[in-house]
Amino acid sequence: MPKDRVYIFDTTLRDGEQVPGCKLNTIEKLELALQLEDLGVDIIEAGFPISSPGDFESVSQIAKHIKNATVCGLSRAVQKDIETAAQALKHASKPRIHTGIGTSDYHIKSKFNSTREEILQRAIQCVKWAKNFTDDVEFYAEDAGRTDNDYLAKVIEAVISAGATVVNIPDTTGYCLPYQYGEKIAYLVNNVPNIDKAVISCHCHNDLGLATANSISGVIAGARQIECTVNGLGERAGNTSLEEVVMIIRQHKHLGFCTNIKTEQLNPISRRVSDTMRMPVQPNKAIVGSNAFSHSSGIHQDGFLKNALTYEIINPEEVGADSSKIVLTARSGRSALAYRFQKLGFQFDRNDIDELYNTFLSVADKKKEVEDPDLVAMAKQHQKSTVTL
Amino acid sequence: MPKDRVYIFDTTLRDGEQVPGCKLNTIEKLELALQLEDLGVDIIEAGFPISSPGDFESVSQIAKHIKNATVCGLSRAVQKDIETAAQALKHASKPRIHTGIGTSDYHIKSKFNSTREEILQRAIQCVKWAKNFTDDVEFYAEDAGRTDNDYLAKVIEAVISAGATVVNIPDTTGYCLPYQYGEKIAYLVNNVPNIDKAVISCHCHNDLGLATANSISGVIAGARQIECTVNGLGERAGNTSLEEVVMIIRQHKHLGFCTNIKTEQLNPISRRVSDTMRMPVQPNKAIVGSNAFSHSSGIHQDGFLKNALTYEIINPEEVGADSSKIVLTARSGRSALAYRFQKLGFQFDRNDIDELYNTFLSVADKKKEVEDPDLVAMAKQHQKSTVTL
Repeated sequence: MPKDRVYIFDTTLRDGEQVPGCKLNTIEKLELALQLEDLGVDIIEAGFPISSPGDFESVSQIAKHIKNATVCGLSRAVQKDIETAAQALKHASKPRIHTGIGTSDYHIKSKFNSTREEILQRAIQCVKWAKNFTDDVEFYAEDAGRTDNDYLAKVIEAVISAGATVVNIPDTTGYCLPYQYGEKIAYLVNNVPNIDKAVISCHCHNDLGLATANSISGVIAGARQIECTVNGLGERAGNTSLEEVVMIIRQHKHLGFCTNIKTEQLNPISRRVSDTMRMPVQPNKAIVGSNAFSHSSGIHQDGFLKNALTYEIINPEEVGADSSKIVLTARSGRSALAYRFQKLGFQFDRNDIDELYNTFLSVADKKKEVEDPDLVAMAKQHQKSTVTL
Repeated sequence: MPKDRVYIFDTTLRDGEQVPGCKLNTIEKLELALQLEDLGVDIIEAGFPISSPGDFESVSQIAKHIKNATVCGLSRAVQKDIETAAQALKHASKPRIHTGIGTSDYHIKSKFNSTREEILQRAIQCVKWAKNFTDDVEFYAEDAGRTDNDYLAKVIEAVISAGATVVNIPDTTGYCLPYQYGEKIAYLVNNVPNIDKAVISCHCHNDLGLATANSISGVIAGARQIECTVNGLGERAGNTSLEEVVMIIRQHKHLGFCTNIKTEQLNPISRRVSDTMRMPVQPNKAIVGSNAFSHSSGIHQDGFLKNALTYEIINPEEVGADSSKIVLTARSGRSALAYRFQKLGFQFDRNDIDELYNTFLSVADKKKEVEDPDLVAMAKQHQKSTVTL
């Protein structure tokens, strides 16, 4: 059965780059954009051209050099923003303008001091402005996560009529639970008459640790684009992690979805983004953390050595990570110890291992990790003590 | 309406501590245990006593000093493991033995070279052994995430009959999607006749970034205990983050759940665990990352300054974090700039801010972050250039 394609919209260079400390110069941005294109990203959100002359220049350069991916520029529902985005994108082979406005009552009242009707008109207007420059217009309903579904459906219907080809439903504050976000997408699928004329996009934030789950819930409910960033970078607690949603879609084939991402590049691009943007990835980060494929408890090590599938659902090579590590600590067991001795060229029987294991534990209780030189010393000492004349 | 209590079972000192590089000595473990008790954790999994003499000693010391929380020790379905755990816990005021065995076919065949019937008998046996030492016995069905539901229900019914008071349903490999994990818990609620005699516990791993969502899905389906760690530490990509599930339960009051956690201690304990275990927390980590409450894009800053609720669902003080930060970068807008000048004692009108904003952007395009001394210099320069004689 052919699988439904889920488009990967990468916003590392826009939502990621706006994070304190992550700012990139034009050359850095362009290099990352080329690597993202190579990774197989469908849409690269390259920046927010009106925000500064430096960012305008970055978006222009990316638009000139990217040939296969769509290049997208962000704008508010403001004519000058949209014109500037269009100007920055003018050399793009596949330009997209991303424009929109806040639709929750928090945004309508506190931020715009406006009314639902007026915001609806501004939403329609911004899409029309953008359509003067490109066919590919994505509309965002900012804070859709907290927007009343009935009003949201009206706005979405109106912007699709005005020409929006993608409709982005952001959970801007990272508030939704997965079932709620899925219900919101399902509501739009069922209540927006012209919804088949646009792709629904998920843009989720991670303030409660739910961005990945919400995006997948959105796709199951009918969305076909996920906005995400490498390493989950982005405002506050960040955005949906590209590597997580891609691997969920790949590992859960029964869902019937696919992406165009070359997964073996996930770890290399994670390191590149972390280095260039100076944002460390924690060791226990899914898929790309340095411990993501490390096994250390004795129970796990024993099972893993008998059959990797006992404890591992992803082959590290599939995501470009170093092969699984068996780290020897005071929580390791006899089977991992015997395995490591064997790798080091020592063959011991069960009684030897029992004796050596006690020595090992007394070393391991003092050290964080027992390394090969420690083991070689133990093995040699043991051989010496068991030689019989 | 009274809320249903969800018990927080912290395994930072067991599943977290077994991670490469995280090993603690007895004093460090005891100090963290005391802080976890103060945080309001219901159950502290203190270690795996059979694993090493050092860990036995740590569990014993924690058992002696913790008065309010339940102290739990891990064991395999092996008599000596259980006896050793009981021995380590003998001074605990509320001891719990955590024992169990792998129930998925991967575990039964590859790890144990056994059969479903034999594993069922071993499961019953280990609970009976543990019951000789304490009333509070938790059974884990390792790799329950990949265990056939019908067989899992049989095992769970049998161990509850044997005396298990808590039944732990681990998604050991981090494979489940939230709806699948929820369905598994619901299946047990509906198909295990004596399920009302035990508390169902969620123990989820984060290999696909779904541990938090899975745990919440499990609680919605009927579980009432979550096993988690501070900062999401644990094997490979780690466990469910304590801080995330606690704040989801707190922020989503409509779910009708509560915990006993003092949330204002979440950031202090996160830093303490990170320092003691030498495991960095990435800046974009939910709730406890250094950027979790930073706003940097102009659109967000403007909204946030008008009404914090526009972009923030958690007050940073509620989780013991420093107050929200407005960081000035090339993605910041005029309103954040004017706000910061005002804080620094400079009053400028709209025209002044327009002029200063251009100067600001040219500085910001070169620097990652524009700091107060830069702003003071700009303000003074501007005042000089606009003085009229």
